[in-house]
Amino acid sequence: MTPLVVAMGDPAGVGPETIAKAWAQRTEHGLSPFVAIGDPRAIAVVWDGPIAEIGDLAEVARTFADALPVLPILAAAAILPGRPDADGARCALQALEAATGLARSGAARALVTAPVGKTQLYDIGFTYPGQTEFVAERCGVSRENAVMMLAGPSLRVVPITTHVPLAAVPGLLTVELIVAKAQVTVRGLKRNFGIAQPRLAFAGLNPHAGESGALGREEIEMIEPAIAQLRDEGIDVEGPLAADTMFHPRARARYDAAICCYHDQALVPLKTLHFDEGVNMTLGLPIVRTSPDHGTAFGIAGQDKAHPGAMIAAIAMADMAATNRQRYAAACR
Amino acid sequence: MTPLVVAMGDPAGVGPETIAKAWAQRTEHGLSPFVAIGDPRAIAVVWDGPIAEIGDLAEVARTFADALPVLPILAAAAILPGRPDADGARCALQALEAATGLARSGAARALVTAPVGKTQLYDIGFTYPGQTEFVAERCGVSRENAVMMLAGPSLRVVPITTHVPLAAVPGLLTVELIVAKAQVTVRGLKRNFGIAQPRLAFAGLNPHAGESGALGREEIEMIEPAIAQLRDEGIDVEGPLAADTMFHPRARARYDAAICCYHDQALVPLKTLHFDEGVNMTLGLPIVRTSPDHGTAFGIAGQDKAHPGAMIAAIAMADMAATNRQRYAAACR
Repeated sequence: MTPLVVAMGDPAGVGPETIAKAWAQRTEHGLSPFVAIGDPRAIAVVWDGPIAEIGDLAEVARTFADALPVLPILAAAAILPGRPDADGARCALQALEAATGLARSGAARALVTAPVGKTQLYDIGFTYPGQTEFVAERCGVSRENAVMMLAGPSLRVVPITTHVPLAAVPGLLTVELIVAKAQVTVRGLKRNFGIAQPRLAFAGLNPHAGESGALGREEIEMIEPAIAQLRDEGIDVEGPLAADTMFHPRARARYDAAICCYHDQALVPLKTLHFDEGVNMTLGLPIVRTSPDHGTAFGIAGQDKAHPGAMIAAIAMADMAATNRQRYAAACR
Repeated sequence: MTPLVVAMGDPAGVGPETIAKAWAQRTEHGLSPFVAIGDPRAIAVVWDGPIAEIGDLAEVARTFADALPVLPILAAAAILPGRPDADGARCALQALEAATGLARSGAARALVTAPVGKTQLYDIGFTYPGQTEFVAERCGVSRENAVMMLAGPSLRVVPITTHVPLAAVPGLLTVELIVAKAQVTVRGLKRNFGIAQPRLAFAGLNPHAGESGALGREEIEMIEPAIAQLRDEGIDVEGPLAADTMFHPRARARYDAAICCYHDQALVPLKTLHFDEGVNMTLGLPIVRTSPDHGTAFGIAGQDKAHPGAMIAAIAMADMAATNRQRYAAACR
């Protein structure tokens, strides 16, 4: 089977450790063969298990049962855990570039990316806000069409706006933006999750979803028109809902993804419920791309404290999505 | 033992049904004696159990084991469940007034309020935003000093701003407001919850708590100075924290209450975790006052669908808080 590829992220972060721990738990979690790309020394310094350096992805299937396959991309100097620097950032970027290329070419069936240090990347001249935008460009997709979905076992959320001050959020919401994000989400739920008729639930921006305009008018002016347009396209949509009453278990059972107005509205419920197993999946790309929903955690790197749950979930979800995409493509042929 | 008093709220809502169900489950939940105030016909129409109309709170202790004690305040006409009207709203307001008076006088050891229909109350000339402000005024406390805390079994939250449009939130935050809310919260945690040294955690307003100013400056300009001032007063405070990473189980174990910037930031995690058992407690009053954290639910009233969990939790928490207050007063004597 074609392997998945896991870009190691910053070698001084928890990426190497969580990838190694994921491999160690491959059997109990039923993980398909994957290969790490990055500096194998960054794994060896934090982990005592077997590593198989390979030169070709065809070797993954043969080695995966006995050792963690690594396609080596060496940093200019050995990197110490918890000590990020420019060499490590360059290594992370080269690994990301190579991994994206392998996924684009079809040599890898999906791309998983471990966390990078943004400060370190910016210092070496990286001009993208994050890995998502870089991967999108390499895939020929504009940033606007690459949609961030956060997913856990019982909840999927899509924030319409992301890393902007809260005060800027109301001014950024437009009917066009909301409709575009929802359309990409629906296609992603069909292709990556195998959901034939995806159901979306929209959160209101204001308390009680604006209470008919008494507590804000964005629901009336932006969200309701967007919902009307999506319904005209035959999409199953409910809302705008009061955000505080849409994330308890009975409410979550009624939709496949919640479309939220801003970062914390989406990520507070997701991480409250699924802190150790949240996956970031980029929708709207020609490839499957996931990442664990946490950062480099330089402060605990190399101390055997990093929880591999999100990395395992990211690998499993990428695998599942790649399989669903093949089925979807076959069914639509 | 002095009983608790439960104002029945709108007789056409789920108040009567949830109060009756709470009484029916009094033994399994270990509820102390309480008396309902309102129209006993509103209970009888939705519930077949025994009701004891009483004329004096001294009768509660004698009757509580065998029947639900009700201090009757009759509506001008019998009210049907799910059919709110002005007569019902007047009855709800008279019950609230009487119940508040009983708690103020000490005849009742705490006040629990079932939900009212705000539209119906406004229609009969009620000029308060809600029951909280009414109760505060009857207690001689200004609205600003009555602080709303939402509490469930594993989380307590205090929103600094409440029912305002999201766009207005950044402009409403001031150092003074944040400090005042935190001070009332600390006193409430000591007196009502028996926590000797309360620990507060502050949520940032912006994603990632502003990321050192890159994603907004309210943390630097408002929240951090407020925290510094509170620390100078000897209060145990952490933050501002990224809101999305402060509500998972390990994070919640580190504080007694989360101080949040706005309605949904506080209520999304609370209701995601504790939808059927959330309690609204008003801090800063000379009496204990709680209410179930849900509305009148006119749409399901009288259909035996209402979940009494939040009413039971509100009664139990009011009882616990009244006991803690007595201990606190005795210890401080």
